[in-house]
Amino acid sequence: MTVTRLAAAPLVALWVVAFGLAGVAAAETQRGEGVSSFTLDNGMEVVVIPDRRAPVVTHMVWYKIGGADEERGKSGIAHFFEHLMFKGTANHKAGEFSRAVAEIGGNENAFTSNDYTAYFQQVTPQALPTMMAFEADRMRGLVLSDAVIGPERDVVMEERRQRIEGNPGAVLSEETQATLYQNHPYGVPVIGWMHEIAKLNRQDAIDFYNRYYAPNNAVLVVAGDVDAGEVLALAKSTYGAVPRGPDLPPRQRPQEPPQDTRRTVTLKDPRVTLPSVQISVITPSYTSAAPGEAEALDLLSEILGGGMRSRLYQELVVKTGIASSAGAYYRGSALDPSSFTVYAAPRAPDGLAAVEAAVTAEIAKIAADGVSADELDRAKNRFTRSMIFARDNQQGMARIYGTALTTGQDVADVEEWPDRVRAVTAEQVRDAARKYLKLDSSVTSYLLPANGDRS
Amino acid sequence: MTVTRLAAAPLVALWVVAFGLAGVAAAETQRGEGVSSFTLDNGMEVVVIPDRRAPVVTHMVWYKIGGADEERGKSGIAHFFEHLMFKGTANHKAGEFSRAVAEIGGNENAFTSNDYTAYFQQVTPQALPTMMAFEADRMRGLVLSDAVIGPERDVVMEERRQRIEGNPGAVLSEETQATLYQNHPYGVPVIGWMHEIAKLNRQDAIDFYNRYYAPNNAVLVVAGDVDAGEVLALAKSTYGAVPRGPDLPPRQRPQEPPQDTRRTVTLKDPRVTLPSVQISVITPSYTSAAPGEAEALDLLSEILGGGMRSRLYQELVVKTGIASSAGAYYRGSALDPSSFTVYAAPRAPDGLAAVEAAVTAEIAKIAADGVSADELDRAKNRFTRSMIFARDNQQGMARIYGTALTTGQDVADVEEWPDRVRAVTAEQVRDAARKYLKLDSSVTSYLLPANGDRS
Repeated sequence: MTVTRLAAAPLVALWVVAFGLAGVAAAETQRGEGVSSFTLDNGMEVVVIPDRRAPVVTHMVWYKIGGADEERGKSGIAHFFEHLMFKGTANHKAGEFSRAVAEIGGNENAFTSNDYTAYFQQVTPQALPTMMAFEADRMRGLVLSDAVIGPERDVVMEERRQRIEGNPGAVLSEETQATLYQNHPYGVPVIGWMHEIAKLNRQDAIDFYNRYYAPNNAVLVVAGDVDAGEVLALAKSTYGAVPRGPDLPPRQRPQEPPQDTRRTVTLKDPRVTLPSVQISVITPSYTSAAPGEAEALDLLSEILGGGMRSRLYQELVVKTGIASSAGAYYRGSALDPSSFTVYAAPRAPDGLAAVEAAVTAEIAKIAADGVSADELDRAKNRFTRSMIFARDNQQGMARIYGTALTTGQDVADVEEWPDRVRAVTAEQVRDAARKYLKLDSSVTSYLLPANGDRS
Repeated sequence: MTVTRLAAAPLVALWVVAFGLAGVAAAETQRGEGVSSFTLDNGMEVVVIPDRRAPVVTHMVWYKIGGADEERGKSGIAHFFEHLMFKGTANHKAGEFSRAVAEIGGNENAFTSNDYTAYFQQVTPQALPTMMAFEADRMRGLVLSDAVIGPERDVVMEERRQRIEGNPGAVLSEETQATLYQNHPYGVPVIGWMHEIAKLNRQDAIDFYNRYYAPNNAVLVVAGDVDAGEVLALAKSTYGAVPRGPDLPPRQRPQEPPQDTRRTVTLKDPRVTLPSVQISVITPSYTSAAPGEAEALDLLSEILGGGMRSRLYQELVVKTGIASSAGAYYRGSALDPSSFTVYAAPRAPDGLAAVEAAVTAEIAKIAADGVSADELDRAKNRFTRSMIFARDNQQGMARIYGTALTTGQDVADVEEWPDRVRAVTAEQVRDAARKYLKLDSSVTSYLLPANGDRS
């Protein structure tokens, strides 16, 4: 067993990361008890995040497998497998784990992204051993019979029907991603294409399980009112008993070629009443970026379109009032280069062209003139403060670590992140805008009413 | 050995297929000597096409491997391998085969597509045994050393630089295909993405060779002044001696999801002087289409945009004179659903919008009103006649069979094709236009000067 005890960074750093709380009180109550990380003999990583505010613990297991790791033609298998993990094992009937969580008033969920799949429960600390036992049991013990596979595939297909086919914005988003990525599997939807989900079978599920569900492809994150040593002892006795799986090759996906064209994607649908527009470009992620570039992109998105103090919101919604919404977001948490998106919707049905012109004007302006030192300072403050209102802090904190560790970052990257954000200069933000916000290599998407056009 | 001797179809059928020549003279000189096909014990298919007009023979070997069969991330390996096939074997130094062809005044070439890779020589019939011996030798005997791989990869990268990066139309075409295909590997360029070509190595080449270059994945096509029995005897003594390779799974590529968006792809480039536009949609191929649908699409492309008598040419170039070129083409020869494209270029730099409007008006008109019986008859005549002027008939004929047999068709499909084209009704053409020429699920590409727009 390898044990990595991080240097004595007070938890304040983490708090800034997770919630932007630079307050002294929180720092003092946490001082001296930092994040611990370990690696079990079977290769499973363990991260423990003390959070003594309440007698509650968040228990998460993250697998380094997501939609972008799927074999082509088998899209949706990662997400389908997330569903299958709630079926029975040799030791526990389907539903037993969920019932155990519910009976003690806990809650649970799971999620699948391009880069990871994760399972979590939030319970009282006393229930942690039980949660670990259940979770370790389903890591290798699932019973994958045809009786389980077929009906659950129908459930997933119905989920897709409701979430994608039933939602024009989701259809547009899927085809936008497929257009934005010309080669990388981030262009394939995580839920999977319907015609490929329909063909997923028991053997696909078994192959996937045997390949990817193993302690050496997993990260345990425990946040809450727990002691790191106790968590480690529990992890050893539960997860530590699960045999190591086959060694996996590096996660090298097909990468994007240079993009030299401007593309548009337009969906007209009778269910749409007000039009909207979004512009996306490929950008580096935190894992693929040059030092400081991802942090600059985060601040660029904050200044350009992060909430009500942003340029886009102030200009389009508050000042001219032509838009009902306007903003930007950067998807920095990804193993491979991801995307930066700017969006807006006009207040009136015929206002799309004016809104798009205003959006592109703001993009051109920030690339040409950059940002002021004062504007950058305020953005840094807003950016770090913005998470303090996150509804569930403990879960949010656990998610930050889980995401980082399954997308090529490590605990130190998470802890150093606030300092790296603070160090970003106005020039770096301007340069990021100039380098990446280029309409000549972008994808613009239009969601229009059935008889709408872009006017 | 399986021998399939086709029923006594006179070669006139083939001539109509290949060159639209319904003339009696050609039919009579060929009567009684049809196309033969065989399968060798090792699985290699053999097609012999008699053509007694001149003492010349076209010798082609086709492999059922193309760009769309490549592993993701290894784009370009099929085409790269086409280059490697001209390197040395254990028996013949690099260049020896080519020199043997040149010394007898023959010519040779090779080509790689999405679905196949083919090698051919055109020589005197006396040289056929030598060609077969060389070709059979390089089917398994290549020496794939690092000394060969590295320099040839540089050659391919330079080829890509010249053919793609050096040509804005080719760059636009690549990104158009990547946009048109949201899931199918037809969206990946056959020559490969530069960053993936750059990483192809010796092991990739060896794996590819061992997997795909084998008699049971190959089709021999011999057209010319030869006797089928003699060709078969030669094939047995040369190719027949090559051991069968591993059985290959069916060529099942990831298929397209439904497309619900209209997309555009725009390239602005200082090397462009006059703008142009093209509109592409996904259509079935001959292999994937319902009966009669591919034939209807071929006639639709002929009526809408096949040459100077077509609607687009007459309306845009002749009548209004707003365009310098206008036309349409349908890519019917493909294993999986392929595409139908309409294109036009304005006569004046500022004429793009008017030309695009005229193109979409013609599309709307043919979908709404269909085609007249007389127009269809003339199109059928033009369509079958159009190939008579093909520069090299014998090669063209061999290519038709080679393409068919490597894209899921058989010899009978080729022979019956003219009858199926003749049987298409005006309603089928109209229905094909209505079903497939839908702008709401199309990709429009614009090639513009550096400071151009679409006006």
